[in-house]
Amino acid sequence: MIQREALGVAVIGTGRMGTDHVRRINDVVSGARVTAVVDIDAGRAKEVADGVSGCTPYTDPTAAMAASDVGAVLIASPGPAHEEALLAAIDRNLPVLCEKPLTPDAASALRVVRAEEKRGHRLVQVGFMRRYDTEYRELKALLDSGRLGRPLMLHNRHRNPGAPPYFTNAHLINDSVVHEMDVTRWLLGQEITAVTVMRPARSGNAPDGLDVPQLVLFETDGGALVDVEINVTPGFGYQVQAEAVCEHGTAGVGDARGMLVNTAGRWGGAILPGFVERFEEAFDREVQDWVDATRRGEVTGPSCWDGYAAAAVCEAGVLAQAGERRVEVELADRPELYR
Amino acid sequence: MIQREALGVAVIGTGRMGTDHVRRINDVVSGARVTAVVDIDAGRAKEVADGVSGCTPYTDPTAAMAASDVGAVLIASPGPAHEEALLAAIDRNLPVLCEKPLTPDAASALRVVRAEEKRGHRLVQVGFMRRYDTEYRELKALLDSGRLGRPLMLHNRHRNPGAPPYFTNAHLINDSVVHEMDVTRWLLGQEITAVTVMRPARSGNAPDGLDVPQLVLFETDGGALVDVEINVTPGFGYQVQAEAVCEHGTAGVGDARGMLVNTAGRWGGAILPGFVERFEEAFDREVQDWVDATRRGEVTGPSCWDGYAAAAVCEAGVLAQAGERRVEVELADRPELYR
Amino acid sequence: MIQREALGVAVIGTGRMGTDHVRRINDVVSGARVTAVVDIDAGRAKEVADGVSGCTPYTDPTAAMAASDVGAVLIASPGPAHEEALLAAIDRNLPVLCEKPLTPDAASALRVVRAEEKRGHRLVQVGFMRRYDTEYRELKALLDSGRLGRPLMLHNRHRNPGAPPYFTNAHLINDSVVHEMDVTRWLLGQEITAVTVMRPARSGNAPDGLDVPQLVLFETDGGALVDVEINVTPGFGYQVQAEAVCEHGTAGVGDARGMLVNTAGRWGGAILPGFVERFEEAFDREVQDWVDATRRGEVTGPSCWDGYAAAAVCEAGVLAQAGERRVEVELADRPELYR
Amino acid sequence: MIQREALGVAVIGTGRMGTDHVRRINDVVSGARVTAVVDIDAGRAKEVADGVSGCTPYTDPTAAMAASDVGAVLIASPGPAHEEALLAAIDRNLPVLCEKPLTPDAASALRVVRAEEKRGHRLVQVGFMRRYDTEYRELKALLDSGRLGRPLMLHNRHRNPGAPPYFTNAHLINDSVVHEMDVTRWLLGQEITAVTVMRPARSGNAPDGLDVPQLVLFETDGGALVDVEINVTPGFGYQVQAEAVCEHGTAGVGDARGMLVNTAGRWGGAILPGFVERFEEAFDREVQDWVDATRRGEVTGPSCWDGYAAAAVCEAGVLAQAGERRVEVELADRPELYR
Repeated sequence: MIQREALGVAVIGTGRMGTDHVRRINDVVSGARVTAVVDIDAGRAKEVADGVSGCTPYTDPTAAMAASDVGAVLIASPGPAHEEALLAAIDRNLPVLCEKPLTPDAASALRVVRAEEKRGHRLVQVGFMRRYDTEYRELKALLDSGRLGRPLMLHNRHRNPGAPPYFTNAHLINDSVVHEMDVTRWLLGQEITAVTVMRPARSGNAPDGLDVPQLVLFETDGGALVDVEINVTPGFGYQVQAEAVCEHGTAGVGDARGMLVNTAGRWGGAILPGFVERFEEAFDREVQDWVDATRRGEVTGPSCWDGYAAAAVCEAGVLAQAGERRVEVELADRPELYR
Repeated sequence: MIQREALGVAVIGTGRMGTDHVRRINDVVSGARVTAVVDIDAGRAKEVADGVSGCTPYTDPTAAMAASDVGAVLIASPGPAHEEALLAAIDRNLPVLCEKPLTPDAASALRVVRAEEKRGHRLVQVGFMRRYDTEYRELKALLDSGRLGRPLMLHNRHRNPGAPPYFTNAHLINDSVVHEMDVTRWLLGQEITAVTVMRPARSGNAPDGLDVPQLVLFETDGGALVDVEINVTPGFGYQVQAEAVCEHGTAGVGDARGMLVNTAGRWGGAILPGFVERFEEAFDREVQDWVDATRRGEVTGPSCWDGYAAAAVCEAGVLAQAGERRVEVELADRPELYR
Repeated sequence: MIQREALGVAVIGTGRMGTDHVRRINDVVSGARVTAVVDIDAGRAKEVADGVSGCTPYTDPTAAMAASDVGAVLIASPGPAHEEALLAAIDRNLPVLCEKPLTPDAASALRVVRAEEKRGHRLVQVGFMRRYDTEYRELKALLDSGRLGRPLMLHNRHRNPGAPPYFTNAHLINDSVVHEMDVTRWLLGQEITAVTVMRPARSGNAPDGLDVPQLVLFETDGGALVDVEINVTPGFGYQVQAEAVCEHGTAGVGDARGMLVNTAGRWGGAILPGFVERFEEAFDREVQDWVDATRRGEVTGPSCWDGYAAAAVCEAGVLAQAGERRVEVELADRPELYR
Repeated sequence: MIQREALGVAVIGTGRMGTDHVRRINDVVSGARVTAVVDIDAGRAKEVADGVSGCTPYTDPTAAMAASDVGAVLIASPGPAHEEALLAAIDRNLPVLCEKPLTPDAASALRVVRAEEKRGHRLVQVGFMRRYDTEYRELKALLDSGRLGRPLMLHNRHRNPGAPPYFTNAHLINDSVVHEMDVTRWLLGQEITAVTVMRPARSGNAPDGLDVPQLVLFETDGGALVDVEINVTPGFGYQVQAEAVCEHGTAGVGDARGMLVNTAGRWGGAILPGFVERFEEAFDREVQDWVDATRRGEVTGPSCWDGYAAAAVCEAGVLAQAGERRVEVELADRPELYR
């Protein structure tokens, strides 16, 4: 049975995602509350903690993890800080929800895998929230049912209305296409074995420093071929679509449209402005599921292995993108813990 | 077998519809040519005839019908002139395609029915072109198949981007809703027994003299209930939709959309500008079918009875509209010829 | 600022809706917990309470309301029991979320209005959950913006895959169409002044005792005309659609479709099976908003007046349905508290 | 002005396409009639000619072209017979509508280009009928308008319900993907410079001898990147879709859907069964436009150069497919006549 007390969560990192998770845990999900916030900026940590009853600010993640009212950790700090926090939490046997990426590269991700493997049981869930999206789950259920036969292709579109000023081509792979990497692995239950990146002429509308659009192709160990249009178009809106091409038919998600307006010779509606609106319920469900599982003493959701595999595919993707060629993915053997 | 020679057609009336039919017969459909055009304005008749090789202008319909190169008649003159032309054609045993309305009122329409009945065989096809629209035909085929069970309701929307300056509320019934009357009778194979008209507040955007939108309700002798939104909204575009509610499900047409554009935070496309664009292929098919049937010596398509029944329902509709109440439709007995 | 403690809620009634709300409050929404459940069946109350930590079973609503750990009441008992529970809660100054209907008839609903009016501030929120549906809220926002001009018509479809065995024609009005009554009043900000019910032939597929489909028409004091197809078709699925026809265009909701599957010569997808799936997030949002408002010391959401007006329109609707005619709605003067 | 007499057409080849064109010219389009049919099988030629008034059967194309009642030639014989018939028609200065392919390979196609170039004016139109499809024309108009900026990507799906028994992987390129080659060149106004073919695991549902699905990628001299899913799935239906990704947005065609049926828990409709149904109007329009232009003494539509370029891209495509790699396209210099 579920533990009586609300789960006390330490949120590490108080940027956009971290702050949003603080709000989510306190105001949206059931059974948890934020008892600690951590930021290297002490003023920032205090500011956020002051807005939450019963919440203590910290600058050191390990100090927060040692607090008696902390039963689990949500990591939303910048990627380079993840490894240390993850290893500390694993060391203390604390359940973790870690925003993607697990860590910034495959080598460090593998170290986290090894640490968890050594611990002997899963503690870490990685924040690939598309797995909690209703439509993607429908698609997964259909593919798993086998009703359409084997999936052979997966067409994806990933379109953004903008990108942060620091965004580079490598960020397109590591921050954006990484979602399609995880979706591919999860939907198909297959590992990605090679990545190819092709680029058309650069859009005159592209933000500085970004060569968009690009076409990213994955091959999998199950023989599937996956294409991803990754795009950033100022003012466009946010569109994420996937269509699986199977032996007996196809199934697509991401075309759901809300209110239809007919006026002035046009039919149509609004494209969602961003990933927050598109995946808000997925984020809520992700955190609620994590809280529920944690209170039951379980770990479900995407694993460290999923985080590691994504990192390895990202590395291949960045190489493929830089050289505009096909790069094979090298993965360690999959530990028993993740089978 | 089909007669070798192209069918020589006399087109009576050279307004918008007449001129368009001249073009259609000469440039679009196969197996016919316009050999005569008739207009009470001799200059206008000559002008149109001059543009067509082998075409003679007339001011008198009966003179045109007497010409040796005229084998069939297409009536596109104003409604009040239809009866005389129809009776003359029936008298000469000439096949006729008569633009709607058959005649402007039920009494005159019934006289045409009687004349054709006396002739003993069908000669006249009435221009209810929706029966030739691909989607409406799909819907008809589905209803006829019985796969959804009996149709119980029919929801219709009939939206226009504008109306001619002379348009009155009565025109809404006689020129616009008359299409839904025919669609109802044809799709369901039932006669309309009562009409009710209800009006919300008048749109501040309504053209002068029109109280739009209005809701028109039909009851049928088969127990079906039909609602029609009739509307005129400047700048809106042209939308015609129908949804049949049957015992086991529903089926709708008119929502087909063409090119989908995603840009500037909106998805959508263009609403067709008018009935010409929406029903262009239906007009082409209607005339081609009429030409083909005529060359085979047959008469198919909507009959004088259909024209008469529409006129009778229109009369009830105008009364219902004026009094905002329910008015029953009175029909003569259906002659054997139309069963 | 929000009170620190979770809101203790007494849930009255442990049928389908009551049990679902117990689950929702405990497992889904934030900031509340079920501290009391009430059922006249003591065994049933104990059974439900045993599944919830810190929850006490009661057979008497007033006893539960007197408990120190109860700060608010959720009424999900059968409609005839509502009035007594509502008056008791108002007497104790306890905030209430009352599942629809407020009470089974207009006279009793008006007594609740008077009691709350006497109390001098709002305590009661009525469970019209469509107001919390994302798409209906989008439509409301668009109408309120005035961008499409005044709403003149509202077309509604309300289709169900089944009905409980006890369902009668009156239930169609009181349990089903009541949602469109509230939607009409809320979306348009207008009161319903008359109801007309029309019926086509009865579906051979209709459940025993139900004459479906029916067409229900509302007129409003703002001059809008509203039509509702209410239908029950075994095996059909659940569809709720609304389209507002405004001066400059139309806007529709309820056509959102999820995964699109192409296979075996067909494109398409699944119709949701029932109202739980269609409005699950609306229910969650409704209860979360109620908990949040209550903890802030506020009452938002549909009021007792909304519940009373719906009851008055229902009474007119049932009369109209029985007589197949137009019946005017009589409302008391709207108290200052609800303006 | 258009010539008075109907255009006399010799149809060469009386297979599926040839017979369908005989029907089209006689029964559908205006201003032309079939005066000669040619088939190496004399019995077959006679059989078809017997069904058409005033039509003479031939076994020798040049004999038919020499007949006084033949004013134009429609070539619908197997591809290997095209070159000889084309050169004969060009020699006689006869206008030609040649079903795709122009000829089976680039070298022979270039010979036809040279012959026409020598003649000094265009005589030949190649049967790329998608250019006459309403939706593709809308897309072309939008791209030409520049409203969405430059096109950077073009996503295509080309799905078939079956293939003839003799179909090989090379046919997928030469008979199916050749349409996307022409669409790419026409929509973008760019030449294809390289082709890559990638294959996922073969569908267990694939017809014998076909490795489907495949992903074909084009690069263009304007910097666009084009992907084509080519697929054959027994029982699937026929789907052809294209989405242009431009600097300011995207535009897609081929998703138009007809009648929507809601029943038994499913919404949806029928996928068209084949290319005839999907492109019937495009075929009609293609032939009507050719007849009209020919009667005006003009040649419009896809040129010999378009036929040659498609052949050259096909050759690269087949090589790319066989080797699963990228192959560059080599084109002759474009003659002045086709600029």
